[in-house]
Order: sequence, then structure tokens, then C-alpha cells
Amino acid sequence: MSSKWSELVSDKRRRQEESIPKEWLISQPPINVLDVTSIPEESDVLSAREIEITNCQVELLLVKLASAEWTSLEVTTAFYKRAIIAQQLVNCLTEIFVEQAFARAKELDDHLKRTGQVLGPLHGLPISLKDQLAIKGLETTMGMSQHWSWLVTTFTSAFQPGYASWIGRYASKNAVLVDILYECGAVPFVRTNVPQTLMWGETYNHIFGRTTNPYNRKLTCGGSSGGEAALIALKGSPLGVGSDIGGSIRQPAAFCGLYGLRPSYGRIPYAGAGNSMEGQDSVLSVFGPMSNSIAGVKLFMKAVIERQPWLKDPLAVRKKWDEAEYNLVDHGAGKQLCFAIMWDDKHIAPHPPITRGLKLVKHALSAAGHQVIDWEPFKHEELSDAVRSIWNAGSNEDFLVTTSATGEPVITTMSVEPGEEDPQFRPTPQTDGITAYQLWQVQKRKRDLRKEYLDHWEATASKTGTGRPVDAIICPATAFVACPHGMTRHTCYLATWNALDYAACIFPVSKVDPVLDAKQARDTFFNDSDKAHYESYDPETFSNAPISLSLVGRTLEEEAVIAMTEIVDAAVKAFKSSQ
Amino acid sequence: MSSKWSELVSDKRRRQEESIPKEWLISQPPINVLDVTSIPEESDVLSAREIEITNCQVELLLVKLASAEWTSLEVTTAFYKRAIIAQQLVNCLTEIFVEQAFARAKELDDHLKRTGQVLGPLHGLPISLKDQLAIKGLETTMGMSQHWSWLVTTFTSAFQPGYASWIGRYASKNAVLVDILYECGAVPFVRTNVPQTLMWGETYNHIFGRTTNPYNRKLTCGGSSGGEAALIALKGSPLGVGSDIGGSIRQPAAFCGLYGLRPSYGRIPYAGAGNSMEGQDSVLSVFGPMSNSIAGVKLFMKAVIERQPWLKDPLAVRKKWDEAEYNLVDHGAGKQLCFAIMWDDKHIAPHPPITRGLKLVKHALSAAGHQVIDWEPFKHEELSDAVRSIWNAGSNEDFLVTTSATGEPVITTMSVEPGEEDPQFRPTPQTDGITAYQLWQVQKRKRDLRKEYLDHWEATASKTGTGRPVDAIICPATAFVACPHGMTRHTCYLATWNALDYAACIFPVSKVDPVLDAKQARDTFFNDSDKAHYESYDPETFSNAPISLSLVGRTLEEEAVIAMTEIVDAAVKAFKSSQ
Repeated sequence: MSSKWSELVSDKRRRQEESIPKEWLISQPPINVLDVTSIPEESDVLSAREIEITNCQVELLLVKLASAEWTSLEVTTAFYKRAIIAQQLVNCLTEIFVEQAFARAKELDDHLKRTGQVLGPLHGLPISLKDQLAIKGLETTMGMSQHWSWLVTTFTSAFQPGYASWIGRYASKNAVLVDILYECGAVPFVRTNVPQTLMWGETYNHIFGRTTNPYNRKLTCGGSSGGEAALIALKGSPLGVGSDIGGSIRQPAAFCGLYGLRPSYGRIPYAGAGNSMEGQDSVLSVFGPMSNSIAGVKLFMKAVIERQPWLKDPLAVRKKWDEAEYNLVDHGAGKQLCFAIMWDDKHIAPHPPITRGLKLVKHALSAAGHQVIDWEPFKHEELSDAVRSIWNAGSNEDFLVTTSATGEPVITTMSVEPGEEDPQFRPTPQTDGITAYQLWQVQKRKRDLRKEYLDHWEATASKTGTGRPVDAIICPATAFVACPHGMTRHTCYLATWNALDYAACIFPVSKVDPVLDAKQARDTFFNDSDKAHYESYDPETFSNAPISLSLVGRTLEEEAVIAMTEIVDAAVKAFKSSQ
Repeated sequence: MSSKWSELVSDKRRRQEESIPKEWLISQPPINVLDVTSIPEESDVLSAREIEITNCQVELLLVKLASAEWTSLEVTTAFYKRAIIAQQLVNCLTEIFVEQAFARAKELDDHLKRTGQVLGPLHGLPISLKDQLAIKGLETTMGMSQHWSWLVTTFTSAFQPGYASWIGRYASKNAVLVDILYECGAVPFVRTNVPQTLMWGETYNHIFGRTTNPYNRKLTCGGSSGGEAALIALKGSPLGVGSDIGGSIRQPAAFCGLYGLRPSYGRIPYAGAGNSMEGQDSVLSVFGPMSNSIAGVKLFMKAVIERQPWLKDPLAVRKKWDEAEYNLVDHGAGKQLCFAIMWDDKHIAPHPPITRGLKLVKHALSAAGHQVIDWEPFKHEELSDAVRSIWNAGSNEDFLVTTSATGEPVITTMSVEPGEEDPQFRPTPQTDGITAYQLWQVQKRKRDLRKEYLDHWEATASKTGTGRPVDAIICPATAFVACPHGMTRHTCYLATWNALDYAACIFPVSKVDPVLDAKQARDTFFNDSDKAHYESYDPETFSNAPISLSLVGRTLEEEAVIAMTEIVDAAVKAFKSSQ
């Protein structure tokens, strides 16, 4: 390494290593173990109490923190130690700032002691943040480089993520969401890994390398919020923030067996955070929560929205947290819901474990007294094509401009094996930019498809038996469970919902069992991609990978989507324990 | 006229003339009269009862319609007759469809008679629509021409407005807003004139010609919703719908002495309506109400939003009509408000009548017990430049593609005198398109400016004395009152609020009085444009033009903006009657 970018990377890696307290390292991290989920508790780094704390879900943690049964300092310490173990196992962290987090935790403990009151609804809770979220005074791993000054612009966001060229810059202020989390009483304590450009469904970049899946390290943790997902799956964090422009919360949440919500555009503030393809106003990236419980998802959404983010971020929608919508006022008060299951998107059929998951949910919901019908997919491929065309309109230039300052190569594959490349999202000569007018034509097409899809949904009122249209769609999160590194393909199950701006929540239902999820004979295929996808399935390869599904509701219907995911989650758990 | 476009225009003009019932025409429309506002009542076309009906404001009309004191048929007849007189005086109409409107009115009368119930909150009310709003079965003046088929698109919107190339096409369905207005019980009865491309602050096109200002026909009625404004000012309609992408509701409302609301993006549905520059997703055009009373504005907004437009238009924001926000829950329940007056934008100083209007409002609000401070403008020129750059990114190509099918020339001036040209919005070689990536950079700059402006507003909390930031800004609608045809310039007072997506409501305060509004000596100027603007003022030229101002609130704060406009309006009226 002798070029500018590689020098920056070497220096950054050294400094990251120095930021890790040595006493929290496990002495001999396993090398050949695939499923590392039990390692943190088997190591001698965590005390029994620290294991208890880190195994506790958000909703109970907050009760114990509010009652001062556990201090924020000890909770933060416990999660920090477990996060460092996670880092050794799956390489999920970017920024580690123990001193700052501990000072914050102590401040909160003092506040509670002094006033008898919590500072806010997330009082004392450690929270992990995707590496886009600027924190004042911290190095912003991928800090802004000088060459940007030619742009007709002043940057209110502090940096862009995922590139070596951002190394060595420090944020002058918090992202708006970070400010709000502080106001809620949270303790940001680590930032987590992302792929270069953020536009991959896996997590790898030149600075920090690859994050792997804790359930099977030969598999990807997903992306782009992959560091978050791997960390939370190892219980190195109780609650984290990811972002999603084409599946970047949902794919890693699904691959790591978490709950993860993709809210609608502007429900959670984005201002002051870094991003790629900034200024692309048509398919917006959104922040959302990832957690081991659906309660964690709700707590985050309610807490942030109740801080009126629209007073700090002009793109945040002025829409209060609506308890009536959470109580399903628009869905017959939730008494009998009608869910529609989308078995496939008529383009790529999902792998066997996912179909098993869908069947399980169907039986569970029927057993709980709900209606379940089939969902007819509608122009999903066209919708995800529109999204990709909008990104490609300027992404290549964006990536090249960003990397040119340091000479850092633009990554063209997430593959472990050299030569095994993924065509998704890769900037290629074919995706060179188009004109603004051409972009408008694609955006118009997307808008028209959104209208058609809305009418399609409304028209289901005649089929549900409830007098309402379908309340929510249950569908595969992706066409596959966590796959070997570099094999991620087919974003159509994800990007369709970004094109439509529908709120979507991931929930886990099971794990791959090579016996239950055997390969099944199939004669007809939607197309060649579908056939190749079918052939890529092998039960042993995907063994132990979480099986997760997605619940999809309407735009700006976050409250109802959370409530309905709670209903589905409870039904699945009840059904499984009855078997 | 021998080219394709001119043949289409001749045919359309003939058919428009045939659609006018001859018995409603006034026999000798005045030629040299400038102020024609009294002509409708002086003609012998309207009965005394029809004069009473058409002079009645929306809120009372609805009471009389609901109680069956007046039938919808007689109300519709009265307004239709007065609209046809207006057409003779100021040339404000495009589509005239008496039979269809009368059938609808009768249907509503029958419904009320049969059920004793109104069909909806706008039961029986005639409503006029800007020519973009497709009505099923009607010729869509500017119907879509074949050459569009090369676009990778299917059109859900029925047509594009303002061009000869759209002549001869008929809408296959209603725009979503039209559907909703029908559901509310309204009676759409005329459509109104627009400028070619919609991107002018005046109203002139090759098909229908120019619409003039009823208060002074040598002056423009404004644009692009100019036909609406001129019609409503003559009381040819009690309530109308305009659209606003850069001032197109507010400028004509201000120039014609009306109330007119520019709602935030997506508050009122747009799907299925025609537009220019479709697919431009960054600075969105919005529909909004125009009326002779602020009550008319409120009635329209509440009625449309309560129909849940988000179930019919994917871009409509899922935000219910919020009575608490209307009761100013976020503004100290309205007890003592703090308004900030923006005297100028530090770029172009307004003409004397507007400054007199601002002073009048200041005194009126102080007298009513409210706080009034000065508003510090913040980068207004940069904001409106950003908006223009975004439009220019593809507008030239859009206009040329649309006109190329028929050979219709793109209009380059709104001037009466040949050679007197307006540089605003004109497609020129300099505004040839840019790349999508370049567009993203401008859009990013706009987003950053929005964040800065929001922080600027929030920071006023230290100056108001209410504990809150400024509740609303009172500012000039434009830098000038209605001006001679072709002289419209300086959109910065308007487009800034589109860039920021702030809800803004126009209200009238007075009319130009050459004695009170004499030219005043001024030595220093912000710039050459400001100097030229100063020199363009002459009290006699602008005589009798309405003086209107704008009340500006935050994004998606329509309820509060309406409530605060009611407060300001009442204060102004009370203050004037006390003088």
C-alpha cells in the first residue's frame, strides 16, 4: 500500500485498533466456527450480570434503567464489551468511542439520581448507529475531502460514507437524528460498518473490510446496514439505526433474524447525515430502527417522532405519532384483519425456506382468527427497474467524483473469490449518466406505477370479507436467505417497496433446516434468472440462516405496520409453541 | 393560419364559441372600460336574485344550498351566467359544459329532496377548475398528442395543458381531485385559462389568447392560474382550484384581490391532472383553493382532506385534517401570536402600495394585541435561483418535445407590444438541459438551504416574547401589484416559499390609490434590478389594482396558516373600519 488512499486506510485501521480496550478482547477468537452466536456468553469477558443485561430486550432494559435497578453505566459497559467481542467475531464496527459513551452514561445516571426523573423515553439506553450518522467531535471515518469544494454547495451534512477519502475528518455537529436520540436520553456508543457507496446488499469496504453473518460466517450479514444487523444479532447492541434506499435495513435485518422497520420518506429525520448520491430527490433513503424485538422498533419510532423532528429537519413530515392509528383505527380496530400473502413476485420464486416461512405465517394467522388471502403481485419488476434507473442516472459520476480525490478504487464486487462478481448496483459504462429530462421521464413512469399500485391495492376490498382492502401484505424479505459472500442478487423484493414508499417491517420466523428445507423439483421457471436462482439453492450452504419475512403497509402508516407486525409476531410464536 | 397547430386552434375557438349559450351574452360588451368589476350587475343578463346569489360567499351559499332555500340548479345557473359575462369581459374560460353541469346540479337537488341529506360538505356548490384538471368525457383542451408514445411511459394523467397539440383529445377519467370534489357534492362547471407551458406569471396562450385583470384590463390578472383569479374576482365562481409551482396560485390571487392558499406538497391530490415538466420530483406543483373569502379556502381544504386523498393518490400525504392545529395548538392557542413582517427580501424592494399594505397590517395586528416584529430574509435569492435551476434542467426539452408534434411555437413573451420581452422562465439556449448528476447537485443545495432556513426560523424564539418562534411571516405576495401585460418579473417573493415548501395564504388588504401610493424618492438600491423595478412604478399605471399580502407558515401547517389568516383578515377589517 503506497497510494494516498491506502496510506489513509492503514492509518485508520491502526487507530481503530487502538480505540479498543484490550481487556475486553477474547484471547483466542475462533477461526473455523461458522455459527458464533454462542461465543460471547462462552467467553470469560462478560460477567453473569453482563450476560443478563445484554440478553434483555429493549422494553425491559428501559424499565430497569428508569427504576435505577441498572445504571446506564453498567448497561453501556455490558453492551460495549459484547460489541467488542462481536467485532472480533464478525467485524461489524467502525467507530469505537468508549470514553465519550461512558461520560454520557454517567451524566444520565447523575441526572436520574439528582432529579428522580428520566431524561427521556430512551433514558440510559445504549444505541448503535450506522456509520452515516455524524456525531460531533468524533472522527467521521469517511470525512469529507477537499475536492468537493468545486461543487456549488455548502455541506450541512458532515460527510459521505463508505470511502477512504472521508478518513481524517471530524464532524462539526451531530446529525439531527443523533441530536434527537440524545434528547431522548439514549447513549450512542458505537458506529457500524457499511459497504463502499452504501449501494450493495452486503457489507464490505476498503477501510474496514467485510462484516460476516453471526449465524454462519460463510454467509453475508446483508447490507448496507450490515454492521448494525451483525452487531445486534450478537446482542452487542439492544437497538440500532440503519438506513434503507433499496432494502438496506430490511435485507440485513432479515439475514440476521432481527426486527427492522423501513419507514416512509421523511418520517425519521435524515438531515446532517452522510449519504451517497446526495440530491437525488425521487427515491429517498430513510433511517429506521433495528432490534431484537418489535417493541424496540416501536419505542424508537414513538420516541423520535414525539420529538417533532420537523422542527429540525425540513424534509421530516409534520405528522405526529398517532396512537389511534397504532390501535388500528383504519383497520377495524384489529379485531379481524385480512392479510394477503405474496408467495412470489412472478419474476424470481423464493428459495424453499422462505416458502416454508410463508406457509407457517399463513397457518398461524388463520389459527389466530384472521383472514388470509393471496396477494397478486403487480409490475414489481418494472417498479424495481424504475428505482435502479433513477439511481443509475447519476450514481456512476457520484462514485467516481468521490473516489477521485484519493485514487481509491470503486468496488465492483462483494465476492470472496476474485472473479466472482455481482452485477447489482455496480457502476459500469452502461450506467453512465442520463440527462435531467430523461430522468424526469423515468420518475414520471415511477409516479404512474405508484398510482396503478395504489388502485390495485384498493381494489382488493371486494376480496377480503372485511369490507376493507387488504390490511397488510406478508411477503418474502428477499428471494433468498443470507447467502455466501458476493452472491447477493435480485433486489426486486426489496426495492419495489422503496419505489412505492410503503412502510415495511421485517420479522423472523425460523431458521434454515436442511431437512425441512430440502431442494424441491421444479420444472417451469419465470425466466432464466429465476432458473439460475433456483439452481443456486443448496440446503447445506444456507444452513442455520434466519428465515425472515416482511409485513408491508401503506405510505406513512408506520403505527399500523408496527401494530400489525406485533399481531403477526405473536401469532407465529403462539402457533409454533402449539406445534 | 395554415399550419397544423393553427388549424387546430381555429377549430377549437369555433367550438368554444358554440358552447356558449347566446342568451347569456351581454349585447355590447364595453371596449374602453378598464375596471369592469361592476359590469356583470349592470347588465340585464342577471336577475336580482341571481345577483344576490353570486354576491354571496361560499360559507353562506352552502347553508342556503343545504337548507334547499336555493337549489343547486339555480345557483349553478346564476354563476354560469355571470361566468359567461366574465368571459366576455376578461376572456377567462377554456371549457364550457353547461349541459353536464346542469345535469349534475339537478342530480344533487333530487338527492337532497329524496334523502333530506346533503351529498357532502360542498353540496350543490359550483366550482371552477384550472384547465389542468381532467373531467371525464370532456374535451381536454390540450389533449395528448401521439408523439408522446415514444416515451417509456403510460399516461395516467389525461393530458398536458397549455398547448395546441393537446386539442381534440378527451379525458377517459377524472383527475383524482375532480373525483373527490364530486364526492363532496360540488358542481364543476367551467375550466379556466392558463399560459402556455404553465410557467408564466401571466395568462396567455395561442388557443384562447390573453386573460386580463377585471380591476384594470390594461393589467395582467397574473398566472398561471390567471383564468381562475379573473373569473372569481368578477364573482363568476364562488370557489376555484388553481395550482402553484412557483407562485401560480398566489400571484393571480394577489393581483385580483382574492384569498388563495398554496398548500404544501401532497396535501391536495394531483394524480390524473395534466402538467408540464412531468416527472420533475423536486419542486412539486400543488393544487389549492382560490375564493372571495378565507372561509372558502378552509371549506375546500377540510372537505378534500377529509375524503382521505391518500387512498387515491400515492403522492397525497397521509395526514388527517387536524382540528387541534386549526385551533392553533402549536401557537399558544392563538391567544397572543407573534407575526414577523418581511418588508423586503434584500433583493427587490416592493412598490409603495405594498409597503403601505404591510404597515396597515402591522398596525392592525398591534391593535388586536399581537406581537409584530421584523423578519430577517435569509438567502431568498439563492432559494429562488435553485428553484429556477431545477426547472431549467429539463424544461426547454419538455416544451420543445410537446410543441414539436404540431409545430406550435413556444411562446417567448407575455408582452402586448411585440419586442417587449420577459426573460423569466423563457426557454433559451442558455437553459438547455443539464445532466441528472448536475441536477442532483442543485437539489442538494436546495435541501441544505431548506435546513438553514428552518434553523433561521427556529432561532427567532429568542425574539418573540411568546416563548415560541415566530408564528407566521407576513410578506409581500410579489414585489409589485398587477402590472401591465408582459411586465411580470421577479418571482423571488413567490418561488422562495415553493423551494421551502411552506404553506402560504394570500389575503387582500386594499387597492392602489395614486394619492396614498405616490412614488417616493429613493437613493440606494440593492442592485440594478431593484433600481429598474423602482423606476417601473407609476401610481397611475397601477391604479385600482388590488394590494394583497402573503401569510407564510411551515410545511404541512395548512390548518394553522388558515386560522392565522382568518385572524389577520379580521384584524385588518376591524382596523380599517375603526379609521
